[in-house]
Amino acid sequence: MSKQIEVSSETSAGTSNEKKEDFSQLWSYVDQNETKFVDQLVRLVSQPSISAQNIGLKECAELVRSMMEKLGIKTQLISVPNAPDVVYGELRSSEKRARTLVIYNHYDVQPVEPLSEWKTDPFKPEVVDGKLFGRGSGDDKGELVARFCAIETLLDNGSSIRPNIRWVVEGEEETGSTHFHDFVLKNKSLLRGDGCLWEGGDRSTKGTPEIHLGTKGLVYIEFKVKVGEKDQHSMYGPIAPNPAWRLVNLLKTIRDDKGKILIQGFYDDVAKPTPQEKKFLRNNEYNLKELREALKIDYLIQGKNDLETITNLLYNPTANIAGFGSGYVGEGSKTIVPKEAFVKMDYRLVANMRAKDILAKIKRHVRNHGFTDVQLISHSLEDPAKTPVESEIAQTLIRCTKLVTGKRPNVWPTSPGTGPLSLFTDKLKLKTAMGLGVSYPGSGFHAPNEHIRVEDYKQAIKQLICLFRLF
Amino acid sequence: MSKQIEVSSETSAGTSNEKKEDFSQLWSYVDQNETKFVDQLVRLVSQPSISAQNIGLKECAELVRSMMEKLGIKTQLISVPNAPDVVYGELRSSEKRARTLVIYNHYDVQPVEPLSEWKTDPFKPEVVDGKLFGRGSGDDKGELVARFCAIETLLDNGSSIRPNIRWVVEGEEETGSTHFHDFVLKNKSLLRGDGCLWEGGDRSTKGTPEIHLGTKGLVYIEFKVKVGEKDQHSMYGPIAPNPAWRLVNLLKTIRDDKGKILIQGFYDDVAKPTPQEKKFLRNNEYNLKELREALKIDYLIQGKNDLETITNLLYNPTANIAGFGSGYVGEGSKTIVPKEAFVKMDYRLVANMRAKDILAKIKRHVRNHGFTDVQLISHSLEDPAKTPVESEIAQTLIRCTKLVTGKRPNVWPTSPGTGPLSLFTDKLKLKTAMGLGVSYPGSGFHAPNEHIRVEDYKQAIKQLICLFRLF
Repeated sequence: MSKQIEVSSETSAGTSNEKKEDFSQLWSYVDQNETKFVDQLVRLVSQPSISAQNIGLKECAELVRSMMEKLGIKTQLISVPNAPDVVYGELRSSEKRARTLVIYNHYDVQPVEPLSEWKTDPFKPEVVDGKLFGRGSGDDKGELVARFCAIETLLDNGSSIRPNIRWVVEGEEETGSTHFHDFVLKNKSLLRGDGCLWEGGDRSTKGTPEIHLGTKGLVYIEFKVKVGEKDQHSMYGPIAPNPAWRLVNLLKTIRDDKGKILIQGFYDDVAKPTPQEKKFLRNNEYNLKELREALKIDYLIQGKNDLETITNLLYNPTANIAGFGSGYVGEGSKTIVPKEAFVKMDYRLVANMRAKDILAKIKRHVRNHGFTDVQLISHSLEDPAKTPVESEIAQTLIRCTKLVTGKRPNVWPTSPGTGPLSLFTDKLKLKTAMGLGVSYPGSGFHAPNEHIRVEDYKQAIKQLICLFRLF
Repeated sequence: MSKQIEVSSETSAGTSNEKKEDFSQLWSYVDQNETKFVDQLVRLVSQPSISAQNIGLKECAELVRSMMEKLGIKTQLISVPNAPDVVYGELRSSEKRARTLVIYNHYDVQPVEPLSEWKTDPFKPEVVDGKLFGRGSGDDKGELVARFCAIETLLDNGSSIRPNIRWVVEGEEETGSTHFHDFVLKNKSLLRGDGCLWEGGDRSTKGTPEIHLGTKGLVYIEFKVKVGEKDQHSMYGPIAPNPAWRLVNLLKTIRDDKGKILIQGFYDDVAKPTPQEKKFLRNNEYNLKELREALKIDYLIQGKNDLETITNLLYNPTANIAGFGSGYVGEGSKTIVPKEAFVKMDYRLVANMRAKDILAKIKRHVRNHGFTDVQLISHSLEDPAKTPVESEIAQTLIRCTKLVTGKRPNVWPTSPGTGPLSLFTDKLKLKTAMGLGVSYPGSGFHAPNEHIRVEDYKQAIKQLICLFRLF
C-alpha cells in the first residue's frame, strides 16, 4: 500500500524533464511508423475470429501467437476444454526487483450481421478519412496490437521493458468468457502479478482518454417457447397457442413501463455510489448530447440532470431485450401463428449484486408466475468488479495519460460494460484497471462499421510506451 | 325471399324420382369419362401460372379462355392495370326467366418452392394411387375444371344449363387479389346475378363435403419503433431507449393474459352465432383431436367442450402476432440494444365488424396510450362476409350434396379464413357460397405435393351437374 501511495505522489509531483525527453523521441518513432503500425492491425483484423459462430478462432490464435513471438515474448497456446485456445505469453524484465504487470486481451470478435449495413468488408480493413474500419478494429484487436506496437517501439529504440509481463489473450470474451473462468482458476500461478491492465480505454466526446476501474456484471439468458412442429395459418388463431404472446405476457411481469425491474429481490444488493465515487463523477468530463449524437440515437433516457443520467448509466442494473424473434419477419405480410418464439435478454449487474443470485431469482420469478412452458437458457454469468483508485495500476495509468496529453484522464469508478474482470479482482486478487485504449464514442463496438481513429491509435501506443517504462 | 323459401322447402321435401333418374344417367357419364376429365385437368395444371413470380400467367389465361370457348361460353380477356388479365365468360340460358349464377375462380397458383420436397414435377401432373398430384390440382384449377366438366357432361347429354352464367376467373388471388377489388368495382354490371358460387369446398376427415357461407375479415398491420441509426452496445441499456421493450409495453395494453383484446370498442359489433347457426354447429361433423394432429401442434386452446372450441374458432376475433423481429436473433448471444423493433399482427374480424372501423380503433388506442413513437403500417384490410343459409345459393348447394352423397353436407356459417368475399356479398349484394369442391384435408394447398383424390373430383363434378340444373 505504501508503494502505491509513493507512485501516487510521484504522479502529483509531475515528471522530470529527462523522462519527457526520452518519451518524445519514442513518440516521434510512433508518428514516423504510423503506416507500419496500422498495417499490423490490418493484418490481425483481416483474420476473422467470431466466437459466437466458431469462425477462424484457431487461425487467429496462431496469428496472435506469432505476433507476440516476434516481439520476443515466450508464448504457448493453452487448450481449454470446449473453448478456443488461450494465447499466453511471458516477457521477463532484465531489471532487478522488477514488478509484474498482467495484461488481459481477447482475440475473438462479435458477429458481423447485418452484413448489408457495412460500408466496407468487415474483414478487409480499410482506412477512410483517418479511420480504420473493420470488425475488431477496436474491440479488442486494436487494443491488443497497440500494446504490441508500444513494445516494438521500445525494443527498436533500445529501451527496456521495465516490468515482467504476463499476457493472457482469450478467444471467447464475446460469448461471455464461459470457459475462461475455469482456465483462470486452474492457472492462477501464471497470472500472479502486481497489477493488471485490462482491455478497454475509451475517450470522452472531447477526446480525453478515460480510465475505468470496474465493470458491471451480466446475466445473459434466453427465454424460448415452442408450441408445435410448424407455423400455422393464422385462421387457427382463436384455438392455436401463440408463443410470441406468451413471451409478451412473461416480459410484462419482468419490467414496468418506466424500466423498473419487477423480479422479487432484484435490487437487494445494489450498491449506491460512495462519496468519493460521486466526487469523481462530478469532476469527470462528459457530454451527453455528444454521446447521443455519436450513438446516432434519437434520445436518451434522462435523469433530473446530466450528473444523474451519467450516474444511472453506471449504477443502474438493467433487464435489456437484446433480441426478439418469432414468426414472419420478411417484407410485407404473412398470416401465420408462429411455432416458436424466443427473447434474448442481458441483465447488467452493479456492485454488489451476484450473477448466480440474480439468475436464481429470475428462475423463481418465471416459475412463480406460472410460465412452466417457457424454457430458460442461460448463456453467461459474470459478477461485477471494482478496483480502488489508490492502486498502483490505476495511478500509473493516470500518469501515462497526463504525460501524453498534458491533462488528467476521466477516471470512472466503474464502466457500464462487462468483462470477466471479477475473476481477476476477486479470484486472483489483482488490482485491475482499464485504460490507454484506442476507441472513441463513435467507434461502434459490436455494431456494423466498427472503426477507430488512427490518431487515437497512435495516442494509445504512446501512453502504453509510458506504461511499459513506468510500472 | 319467397323464391328462396320455395327452394328451401323443395330441398326439405326431397326430389322427385324423375330427377334422380336424370342425374344418375349424367353421373354414369362422369364415371365413364373419368380419363377424359382427368386429362382436361392435367392439361390446365401443366401450364404454370405463378402470380407471385409472374410466370406463365398470360399463357394460362389464354388456355382457360379457350377451354371456356369450347363449351360455348362467350369470353373476353379483360386487362387490369398492373395485374394479370381477368378471364370473363358468359353463357346465356335458353330458358325463359332463367336466373343468373355468378361463378368465381382464379387461374393463378402458389409458388412451388421448396421444389426438393415434391415427389412429382409440380407442372407434370401424375395420377398415383388414385390421386392426381400437381400445383393447382386443387387450388384452384381442380375446382375450375370440375365446373367445366359438369357443363360438358350436360351439353354432351343434351341437357340444358338452367341458369345464365357469368364467370370471372382472376389471376392474382394467390398474391392477395390486390387489383381485383378495383376490377370488381369498375365492372359491377358484368357481375350482377342471383347468387354466386365461390371457389373452395373441402371435405371433413370422414369425407363429408363441406359448405362455407362466410369468411372472416382481416386487418393486417405492422407496428414499428425505430430509436436510432444503429444497434447499441447494451452497456448503454440504462440510458438508451429499447424499441423491443417499447413494443412489449404497447402489446400488453392490447391483449390480456387470457386473450381478451383490450382495444376500446373492439367487440362492439361482434355478432354472436344465431340460434340457427348454433344448430348447424351442433350437427356438423368435426374432430378436434385429428385437427390438432394434422396441425402438428402441442395443444389447442380449449373451450368448455368441443362445441365451444369450434365456436370460438369461427366466432372469436383475434389479435394475432404473426411476427416479431428485433435485435440479435442468431445463435448464442449478442449484447446490444436494438435500433428498431417491429411486430406484424393480423386481426381476424367476425361479422359484423368492419375493417376500417377496427383499424381506426387500433390507431386511437396507440395514440391514447401515448405511443406516438410507434409507426403503424397498414398492410391489408378485408371485411368479413356472410351469406344466410336460407339463401337460394346455399340451399341449392346443400341439396346437390344430398343428391349425390345421400347425406347432408357440413354447413359452416363462416370459415375461419379470409378472402375477398365481402366484395361480392357487400359491394355486389350477391349471396355467395363456397362448396362442391374437390379437396380433402390431406390435399396440401400451398404446400409441396398438392393433390386431390380422383374420386372426390368425380363427386364434385356430379354435384356441380346438379347445381347447373337446379339453380
